[in-house]
Amino acid sequence: MNVETLAIVGVGLIGGSIGLAAKRRGLARRVLGVGRQQSSLDRAAAAGIIDEGLLDPVLAARQAEIVVVCTPVDSIAEQVLAIAPVCPPGTLLTDAGSTKARIVATIEPALPAGVHFVGSHPLAGSEKQGPEHADENLFQDRLTIVTRTAATEPQALEKTSTFWRALGSKVRVMEPTEHDKALAFTSHLPHLVAAALAGALPGAWGELTASGFRDTTRIAAGDPALWTAIFSQNHAAVLDALGLLLDRLERCRECLSAGNWAALNDLLVQAKKVRDALGS
Amino acid sequence: MNVETLAIVGVGLIGGSIGLAAKRRGLARRVLGVGRQQSSLDRAAAAGIIDEGLLDPVLAARQAEIVVVCTPVDSIAEQVLAIAPVCPPGTLLTDAGSTKARIVATIEPALPAGVHFVGSHPLAGSEKQGPEHADENLFQDRLTIVTRTAATEPQALEKTSTFWRALGSKVRVMEPTEHDKALAFTSHLPHLVAAALAGALPGAWGELTASGFRDTTRIAAGDPALWTAIFSQNHAAVLDALGLLLDRLERCRECLSAGNWAALNDLLVQAKKVRDALGS
Repeated sequence: MNVETLAIVGVGLIGGSIGLAAKRRGLARRVLGVGRQQSSLDRAAAAGIIDEGLLDPVLAARQAEIVVVCTPVDSIAEQVLAIAPVCPPGTLLTDAGSTKARIVATIEPALPAGVHFVGSHPLAGSEKQGPEHADENLFQDRLTIVTRTAATEPQALEKTSTFWRALGSKVRVMEPTEHDKALAFTSHLPHLVAAALAGALPGAWGELTASGFRDTTRIAAGDPALWTAIFSQNHAAVLDALGLLLDRLERCRECLSAGNWAALNDLLVQAKKVRDALGS
Repeated sequence: MNVETLAIVGVGLIGGSIGLAAKRRGLARRVLGVGRQQSSLDRAAAAGIIDEGLLDPVLAARQAEIVVVCTPVDSIAEQVLAIAPVCPPGTLLTDAGSTKARIVATIEPALPAGVHFVGSHPLAGSEKQGPEHADENLFQDRLTIVTRTAATEPQALEKTSTFWRALGSKVRVMEPTEHDKALAFTSHLPHLVAAALAGALPGAWGELTASGFRDTTRIAAGDPALWTAIFSQNHAAVLDALGLLLDRLERCRECLSAGNWAALNDLLVQAKKVRDALGS
């Protein structure tokens, strides 16, 4: 893949890592970064993450062959629809948001002819934020989900998949609602659980935590505003996922109350099997 | 501290790490390991974890100045009471179990005169098992809780604290029931939650997990039998801790159902504050 100009709207951890990977892998001849603070963009340019920083997404979109919007999920659709009218025909717009259904459903009916949007979600990230944590290998061997709907243009889908593969990622195509249902369980629910566990910790016991508590709650350090937006966009599926977990915790509670250690052991054996299969 | 002979009953990850640390730090002149398989003890001896492996805990206890019992929590009291009658006067017995109240309460009234038991719990470990993962720095800068009751002999308490400090650990003295209440939340509950989350994962979605799910469920890979024993020994406190978590998850559910994003954001902000304060 050889892109003349790639524009990244939102140069944080994900956007910065896309820029770094695109430059280091020779995927794009020129990488434009769009942000809200020139000083932050200048630092990203100095760090080799982007070639040039612009405050106006429209100026960047006019020049770009591919635009990746890496802003919080509650602003992605708005950003895409703001730049789509100025994009040259054939421009590919995509994103990196953790939710897909609402974003795709908002964008697709409002897109001008000749400009394509394909939803993306790279399953990579960190509780850390900001371009200073950008990592050119962030997507290496990770999975990126690329969404397809009845309105998705096949060539745009193919180009989006090629783009993520060129960044080192594996690609899986899913429908937006199927994505949101699965990620509600595999990503959004763990965040809720980690936050509930950390938040309920009585203050005096912080000293008495060890690696188990720290691993289990690590992602609770993520940005609250970003996660509130994710929960808001995907609340119905998160409620379903939470229901699955609460059912399981209720079974644990029954085992503890009844002293049914054989049944509790069975639950732990089954959980270990699942966890072992995921690898480290 | 200079111990002539240290005996370790149960040479797994914790027992093996105690042996390795004691030898590398010159804490004990001789380290005896007690286990159920001579071949496993021979491997531990070959790896420099112990000096000699014995199948009979009584033979080891007869020679030791300090005996640390590192078997699963449901066999610690039995092991201690089996060897206590043959120990020379002044022998210090301690353990490394994740629960304390039932162990201490079982041992104390049954101990022969002149032999002392002080409960210990080093807050260090891993989902990995076995002496092949022994780490001489496992206790370095970690906290070990040492228990005190009305029956605890002050010199034995002091010697136990000195022992763990010599292994690199910080030490905090607590009552056994106070320990169990706190650890129910900071250690036993995270295990239950990790197992519930891993166990409830629909099979087809395993591929769609990333580092968030993996961190949050990592400890679910721990040994089910060891953990069932811990839950059995500390079920009342674990039920209380689970209640605190379920209350918090219920608040999250209400926020998701009602679309109360400001309140959900507040919960995430508070959780992040707690998690950030714990450090990595």
